[in-house]
Amino acid sequence: MANISKSENPCVLLHGPESACLGTIPVPKLSDYPADHVLLQTAYTGVCGSDVHFHLHGGIGSDNRKYAQYYVSQPGIGKDSSNGLVMGHEATATVYQIGPAVRSLIVGDNVAIEPAIPCRTCIRCAEGMYNLCFDMRFAASFYEDAEITTTVTNNNGQATKVPFIRSTPGTLSEYYVLPESLCYKLPEHISLKEGVLIEPLAVAVHAVRLAGINPMTKSVLVTGAGTIGLAVAAIACSYGANKLILVDIDDKKLSLAKEWLLGSGHENGQMSGTAINTATTVHAINSSHIGNSPAETATIIKQDKNINLGTGADAAIEATGSPLATRLCIHALRPGGHMVQTGLSKTAAMNDFPITDLSEKEIHLHGAFRYKSGDFETARDLLARGVVRNVERLINKVWEFEEFEEAWKATRDGNIGGRGVKNLITCPGLQEGSV
Amino acid sequence: MANISKSENPCVLLHGPESACLGTIPVPKLSDYPADHVLLQTAYTGVCGSDVHFHLHGGIGSDNRKYAQYYVSQPGIGKDSSNGLVMGHEATATVYQIGPAVRSLIVGDNVAIEPAIPCRTCIRCAEGMYNLCFDMRFAASFYEDAEITTTVTNNNGQATKVPFIRSTPGTLSEYYVLPESLCYKLPEHISLKEGVLIEPLAVAVHAVRLAGINPMTKSVLVTGAGTIGLAVAAIACSYGANKLILVDIDDKKLSLAKEWLLGSGHENGQMSGTAINTATTVHAINSSHIGNSPAETATIIKQDKNINLGTGADAAIEATGSPLATRLCIHALRPGGHMVQTGLSKTAAMNDFPITDLSEKEIHLHGAFRYKSGDFETARDLLARGVVRNVERLINKVWEFEEFEEAWKATRDGNIGGRGVKNLITCPGLQEGSV
Amino acid sequence: MANISKSENPCVLLHGPESACLGTIPVPKLSDYPADHVLLQTAYTGVCGSDVHFHLHGGIGSDNRKYAQYYVSQPGIGKDSSNGLVMGHEATATVYQIGPAVRSLIVGDNVAIEPAIPCRTCIRCAEGMYNLCFDMRFAASFYEDAEITTTVTNNNGQATKVPFIRSTPGTLSEYYVLPESLCYKLPEHISLKEGVLIEPLAVAVHAVRLAGINPMTKSVLVTGAGTIGLAVAAIACSYGANKLILVDIDDKKLSLAKEWLLGSGHENGQMSGTAINTATTVHAINSSHIGNSPAETATIIKQDKNINLGTGADAAIEATGSPLATRLCIHALRPGGHMVQTGLSKTAAMNDFPITDLSEKEIHLHGAFRYKSGDFETARDLLARGVVRNVERLINKVWEFEEFEEAWKATRDGNIGGRGVKNLITCPGLQEGSV
Amino acid sequence: MANISKSENPCVLLHGPESACLGTIPVPKLSDYPADHVLLQTAYTGVCGSDVHFHLHGGIGSDNRKYAQYYVSQPGIGKDSSNGLVMGHEATATVYQIGPAVRSLIVGDNVAIEPAIPCRTCIRCAEGMYNLCFDMRFAASFYEDAEITTTVTNNNGQATKVPFIRSTPGTLSEYYVLPESLCYKLPEHISLKEGVLIEPLAVAVHAVRLAGINPMTKSVLVTGAGTIGLAVAAIACSYGANKLILVDIDDKKLSLAKEWLLGSGHENGQMSGTAINTATTVHAINSSHIGNSPAETATIIKQDKNINLGTGADAAIEATGSPLATRLCIHALRPGGHMVQTGLSKTAAMNDFPITDLSEKEIHLHGAFRYKSGDFETARDLLARGVVRNVERLINKVWEFEEFEEAWKATRDGNIGGRGVKNLITCPGLQEGSV
Repeated sequence: MANISKSENPCVLLHGPESACLGTIPVPKLSDYPADHVLLQTAYTGVCGSDVHFHLHGGIGSDNRKYAQYYVSQPGIGKDSSNGLVMGHEATATVYQIGPAVRSLIVGDNVAIEPAIPCRTCIRCAEGMYNLCFDMRFAASFYEDAEITTTVTNNNGQATKVPFIRSTPGTLSEYYVLPESLCYKLPEHISLKEGVLIEPLAVAVHAVRLAGINPMTKSVLVTGAGTIGLAVAAIACSYGANKLILVDIDDKKLSLAKEWLLGSGHENGQMSGTAINTATTVHAINSSHIGNSPAETATIIKQDKNINLGTGADAAIEATGSPLATRLCIHALRPGGHMVQTGLSKTAAMNDFPITDLSEKEIHLHGAFRYKSGDFETARDLLARGVVRNVERLINKVWEFEEFEEAWKATRDGNIGGRGVKNLITCPGLQEGSV
Repeated sequence: MANISKSENPCVLLHGPESACLGTIPVPKLSDYPADHVLLQTAYTGVCGSDVHFHLHGGIGSDNRKYAQYYVSQPGIGKDSSNGLVMGHEATATVYQIGPAVRSLIVGDNVAIEPAIPCRTCIRCAEGMYNLCFDMRFAASFYEDAEITTTVTNNNGQATKVPFIRSTPGTLSEYYVLPESLCYKLPEHISLKEGVLIEPLAVAVHAVRLAGINPMTKSVLVTGAGTIGLAVAAIACSYGANKLILVDIDDKKLSLAKEWLLGSGHENGQMSGTAINTATTVHAINSSHIGNSPAETATIIKQDKNINLGTGADAAIEATGSPLATRLCIHALRPGGHMVQTGLSKTAAMNDFPITDLSEKEIHLHGAFRYKSGDFETARDLLARGVVRNVERLINKVWEFEEFEEAWKATRDGNIGGRGVKNLITCPGLQEGSV
Repeated sequence: MANISKSENPCVLLHGPESACLGTIPVPKLSDYPADHVLLQTAYTGVCGSDVHFHLHGGIGSDNRKYAQYYVSQPGIGKDSSNGLVMGHEATATVYQIGPAVRSLIVGDNVAIEPAIPCRTCIRCAEGMYNLCFDMRFAASFYEDAEITTTVTNNNGQATKVPFIRSTPGTLSEYYVLPESLCYKLPEHISLKEGVLIEPLAVAVHAVRLAGINPMTKSVLVTGAGTIGLAVAAIACSYGANKLILVDIDDKKLSLAKEWLLGSGHENGQMSGTAINTATTVHAINSSHIGNSPAETATIIKQDKNINLGTGADAAIEATGSPLATRLCIHALRPGGHMVQTGLSKTAAMNDFPITDLSEKEIHLHGAFRYKSGDFETARDLLARGVVRNVERLINKVWEFEEFEEAWKATRDGNIGGRGVKNLITCPGLQEGSV
Repeated sequence: MANISKSENPCVLLHGPESACLGTIPVPKLSDYPADHVLLQTAYTGVCGSDVHFHLHGGIGSDNRKYAQYYVSQPGIGKDSSNGLVMGHEATATVYQIGPAVRSLIVGDNVAIEPAIPCRTCIRCAEGMYNLCFDMRFAASFYEDAEITTTVTNNNGQATKVPFIRSTPGTLSEYYVLPESLCYKLPEHISLKEGVLIEPLAVAVHAVRLAGINPMTKSVLVTGAGTIGLAVAAIACSYGANKLILVDIDDKKLSLAKEWLLGSGHENGQMSGTAINTATTVHAINSSHIGNSPAETATIIKQDKNINLGTGADAAIEATGSPLATRLCIHALRPGGHMVQTGLSKTAAMNDFPITDLSEKEIHLHGAFRYKSGDFETARDLLARGVVRNVERLINKVWEFEEFEEAWKATRDGNIGGRGVKNLITCPGLQEGSV
């Protein structure tokens, strides 16, 4: 077993909205963890839309509330470079030490990290849906400590008891500990950079499974040509979708999408780029020029004889978080179609939700939250098998560790000046000579 | 084979919004139909919320548009007592004549009518989901004739080609023809009046199947204590639901619900009324007094220790069409829960749809449209077996044929002065001595 | 926390075929286990057919092989009253001590025990099918220690390396340790004796779920009127089966079955005994008098107009382990029907398996092994709700701890002289005044 | 509409075991059929293993019994060149006339024929499983006429009433009538010869769907490298299987399999032949050299580190009808695995069926019978999309119409001297210039 010579664990710490800094936390000791855990040296961490939300607002979705409470209830936390929330959750790493019960990994293995530690005994875990675990510890986010309450006082001097909020550290540090069951070994031909894309591919596998896509699926509508939208497109093809309609409002993203999905020389509209030769026909559409409402856009797309959607798409996967896209998906589906809402909306509620269309067409609308049992492994396998490939093409830029804020801003600003859709941050644990 | 002595077929005709009259149409000749059809004498027709919509607006949902076109494109149609749309679709009848290939019915059999004739060859029919048939003929509604277009001229003198709209007659006439496969024989102990309730029970079976309810289902939230809500409650119990939370804003309806579901002396909250001894615990709640928003109402219900919902309901079935109820359902569900939208909204779209809650909790929201293969038969069987019973208690009043408009108004006005939730209209085919 | 005054843990030890004795093993210390474990005092242990197999042969199914290796590879084990395999796996107990992280139980709670500790991280566990866990620790059985091999020498002096076999202790001891997640609290109105039946009911829930039974299921054939067959019959009714055909070759068992399922005065053949008023019709048949082969028996049953099976049963659950019963099930099913093999065959292979009937009718034959996520809890809940009841009637006799061998023999001999189908052994942990 | 000049319809007639001849039957008149039917001129008919059975024994499986009755009950039938059973069911054709309601086809279209006319109203049809239709009319086979019984007299002079047996004509004639919904249009780039392979591909789609194969499926075992086995292999890859183990006992078939599946230069074991670039690894194994029993063979395959099956295959599809192969499949599966029995056994029952392994591993064994809703269309689409390709390579020889018996014998004898696995017979309706 290797020795840890360094005593410090450099990391990126969030202290609140638009307040983050470099800092250090203690190096975790593997002996403090169960015997099936490994100590990792992180290599690369990808930037996700949710990182941008955390940076701008201190949290995302229901985490916003927890975030505020986290700092309120723990005075002194988040004020200097030795505490706060360690950021990052899409990462690759190299195994540095292994616990005595570890069977499937050895020191030096490169792995992709599933950054979500479920309790494995609650009813949702026991059903296989650990993404819905009641006691989940997700990297770089908050959770309620069921055992402790704390008292907070508001501006009027009123005191209330609230659950104590804790955080799970993220992957933007040099050392990181996980159970071996959440470390997915990378084969030699997959680089540590490419491996970062396994996390968004796992999100896509989760969505595609919920949508029930297989070779009988005649058509899939995907809204959004960002990382998740492209991952969903590639995975939908891997699952056998016959026809793919990819919609965005940004011509640059659509252009990258076509290049990546169709390959060079993509004259015939058949995929030969990433998920080569799955014989899926691709239509990449800029919806901002089509129709005055999602309903109209859907009607025009359905009536386009070149696309030939019949009574509508068999499945639709929303990957932007925009209410307009949600509406487009429902209107474009055929009776009995399945829709998956993968994009997280910027607001808690949306207006003009087409409830009557959903009823009369008997649409099945599935929320999608992270990844459940099997999703991450399948994403790794499809990449390893070469079913999905050329994912390095999706990387916009690899930033230095110290440039973390620039990386977040590049993602927020839609990668101005870049060439891909995914920004990577080099982690301090990256070993010399690694790729 | 009996002879038809009468040459006329009295019926109720709709000519447009708030315009309906008694009239006559020709008696159908069985010899004009395929050999597996039967000629029926109708006994009772139930009034459904959609009848009220048709009466008020000429149609419902996307049928509104077709309704207008129906009359525009066919000048002369719908103006007198010999044409228009024959109303009615929840009905029982007695077999009057049978075609030469009919095997399962004999003259004199009492039947409940499934009022929806699917094409049986389109892809949805072939999959078993004939409720989504592309070429459905539903009683008392409109359909586009794929073969014919017609020219309509607007007020500005502009002419446009539109599909020709036809209508399928409803059950508010004396004689009615159907294939035997859509006639469900009533056992002797089920009266022709009770049999009318099989249609709403079939709607409920469809919803309960979509929600995936079985004895592992700890809790089901049902919004709406009208006919469909009560039917859903009873069927959910028949499928094994452990705990039922029934929500409405009308104390009178909740009172009937409790009486019907729990039976007399229902002190302990366990069902012993209709679906006797399924050991389901029932909570009947008036939500108008709880919370200032659906989200708040849901939180209060979830925190009620007496109800003990844990992290939320396993399933929720919406049976009012109110957006507030849809929101309540989503907020009250547990992570991974299933919701079914059975109620048809009065407007095409709704506001404040909790899309983030749906995403983060990975809710599955299913539209529900009528009944598919197996639903009607199961509804009949559960009634025949006595699993669901005392349905006659749900009948508000049996109206004479000539009182059809009063029956519609009673339903529209929430049965003022009545005692149940379902109004029945006596059909002219009712045989003397029948019950 | 209570103190353990006794230093000894009396138990029943198996040393090999037909060799068992009373003995003692150390009292387990709760502090040696993870914080979510509880120390139990066992109350009653039921005798299962597999206990009889273990007593006669040292093991059952593939455990036979492991059994032999267990003693060969560990010289000295299994020879006196301080070692060997502690027997018993269907049990109830009272909580004696709780670990610091236990949330749902307190000292003094009565519980039913799920006697199977899965690893919770392997792929089968992560899918929710922990009954197929690769690293299962099942009470009173053997497992291979993946870490260790040992060398065994045969009669010819040849040495081979084999995996080291360990055993998991059973419940026939005074003290027993389990994670809280495997302890199912009994409500006050369920006695510790009745609670023992939850284990076979969980086996039945598992089978009924595999068979896909619900209120649309017209007919279910169950072969075997022993404990499992009766449990399957009751659970199939709880899940909504319309008609039940229960087949055995022992009139005494069929007589008990009728009494238990139908209740006293069961003239009309409708269940009002255990699973009261589920409105299931029951036919109890002695197949030994019908037909000269399973195929003939099936034909005769299918042609019986009183039973009215149509083209065959929708589902069949085999609960005897007899090849004749397996054949009867397949022949009696309708095209597309589901069969579940719950009984464990006495031999590894069977002859005259009707493979062509299975092919042409597209039968789905499911092996069934123990219980997966949700089964045990559902069994407890159905008993607690009163959906399944009067299970105490199934108890043949409650034996003293010292009479364990008589209890096994009574089960082996079909309860000669008894009145029920399940034998219970009083455990030394039973508290005074408990029932 | 084209006129039929010829008054005769040449065909191949079966009169009993090893008795077949050329003959003529009347040309069907389209006006005698419902308006959605088409009159076809047949192009090619493939020879299937079941044709060989019919030729040798007069029928197959339960059809054997019906066959005998067919001739007994209809004296005079089957004795000369104007009656008997018209053979053939895997066919392509060209549309010659269309009925007035036909929408999707025009005269001159090339189509693949789904040779099975379901009733579309029975409960199995209504569920989408029309392969299990109670009233199926399958090409070149027998059915019981529910309306008529006839009296047959045995050698002892005893008379019994039996159902009257009728036959549905097969495709080995010049003209053939079908509803348009069973005619699948061939795109221009698929020849009429290749189109014949759609029928076995549909059998494969049916099996692969029953086995639940998708990109999460790590491994699939296929027994049999004949037409069905190869079709199953290709379709399993199209559905995303990661690893394929193809087992046969004939090196010549395995050699063709490798060439077809892997493509030329197939050094790396990854498919680049038919279902190109699905990134499936293929192991082609001659099982006759491995182990002394199916159990041993399975153990050796599972222990082969090169194949790396882990605890066993996720899915197994049996495509030979041999009991040894069925046993191999069950033994080679992992716990919880799915097996599909596609091959039809030569005997009604099999011995040494490993019932205990099926139980302890909770295997799901599915019978498979023909194709249900969606299977045929998916097979056509996968061929049209190029996901499955080079199927012409599977054709052993195209025989003249008059050589039908040689074609059957070549199939029976395993294509001695041939180069593929499928024999085709040229039909008299083949149009000049067609391919």
